[in-house]
Amino acid sequence: MHRTKIRVVEDALDANNTIARANRSDFDRESVAVVNLMSAPGAGKTSLLERVVGDLDGVRVGVLEGDVQGSIDADRLAGLHVPVAQINTDPGFGGECHLDANMVRSAVPTLPLDEIDLLVIENVGNLVCPAEFRVGEDARVMVSSVTEGEDKPLKYPLMFRACELVLVNKIDLLPHLDFDLDRFLYNVEAVNPEARRITVSARTGEGVGEWRQWLIETSSRVGAPA
Amino acid sequence: MHRTKIRVVEDALDANNTIARANRSDFDRESVAVVNLMSAPGAGKTSLLERVVGDLDGVRVGVLEGDVQGSIDADRLAGLHVPVAQINTDPGFGGECHLDANMVRSAVPTLPLDEIDLLVIENVGNLVCPAEFRVGEDARVMVSSVTEGEDKPLKYPLMFRACELVLVNKIDLLPHLDFDLDRFLYNVEAVNPEARRITVSARTGEGVGEWRQWLIETSSRVGAPA
Repeated sequence: MHRTKIRVVEDALDANNTIARANRSDFDRESVAVVNLMSAPGAGKTSLLERVVGDLDGVRVGVLEGDVQGSIDADRLAGLHVPVAQINTDPGFGGECHLDANMVRSAVPTLPLDEIDLLVIENVGNLVCPAEFRVGEDARVMVSSVTEGEDKPLKYPLMFRACELVLVNKIDLLPHLDFDLDRFLYNVEAVNPEARRITVSARTGEGVGEWRQWLIETSSRVGAPA
Repeated sequence: MHRTKIRVVEDALDANNTIARANRSDFDRESVAVVNLMSAPGAGKTSLLERVVGDLDGVRVGVLEGDVQGSIDADRLAGLHVPVAQINTDPGFGGECHLDANMVRSAVPTLPLDEIDLLVIENVGNLVCPAEFRVGEDARVMVSSVTEGEDKPLKYPLMFRACELVLVNKIDLLPHLDFDLDRFLYNVEAVNPEARRITVSARTGEGVGEWRQWLIETSSRVGAPA
């Protein structure tokens, strides 16, 4: 019974990877760099996007919003005149707690890939399952808020391990928290020594320049015609 | 294909409910009240437990800790001389992002049910899937931190709807946030008008007395011999 369950999961991940590669081909054909942006609920993914989408040094950005339901974040970003598509996992995809390659595939035709250089896929707020499903992205970024505690890399190592970049958000709140930033960064390094780390505050703008620069560089590294 | 997938999910939920009823019978036999405690990662479940487990007016409490991996929270609570059992969903349960009735069932024999009046099951940090799986609990409580934003009830309505009590934590940070508490409470009421709401700060202790009282009352309401 248990063994069967595991095989189903593995088959599902194989199927997911096949579809992710098809997405990847579509993105490559249009020279679109793709970033999969993940975090716990309320860590600040959308706020960090709002800070940069209007000023990416000529890089044209589009956003694919993933939510269980609703379009609150998509509406916020559409207000900034960015092309936005919405995926809701409920009801069409069973209320799933993550995006997978097939959901992204279903939304690709609604995106003007020929008019953008960078696609940011904002995943469902969740530190577990989104890390398990590749969607055809070039890079994975996670946002971890200092309000969540220093122990999160140790409790959700797969997520921290899956990412090239960890944005440590809400650092404006550090004076008001019992949060040891050095210990947190040490914990990140323990599970993923390769990850780039940028401390930011979407509220004050501190560190946002570095986050913007990372997006611009990732876009040019990936999206440049061969 | 899609229809098949949904049927599998429904069958899994049926099986879960059957096992949850078996758990419920075991808890009833020992007159143990059971609370399923849920939240996003880092909202403060463990800190709010640490605040009350040592002083529940004679109610003897045990804790079942659910995590993908590790035992950081269980170690914190064991240090307070509370009986604690740990469930890790990885690897035995495929790294699941939630507890289900079967996982809880596997841990029941390790708990001294005859020596406790109240069992708190601390679920995996996640605002989506834990709400879908009953585990045999009498009441469901969620913690929502004010750092997560006012929109969370609208984005994760199933979780807010599933709970009898919403603990609004980290209110000591309100002066430093752009968070409209009235709007948040309005959003909670919009999705779950029946839910009791208690504003708390695990850090300063504000509101903790009311949280403690709720646990004591829930325990006596449920656990009293017929």
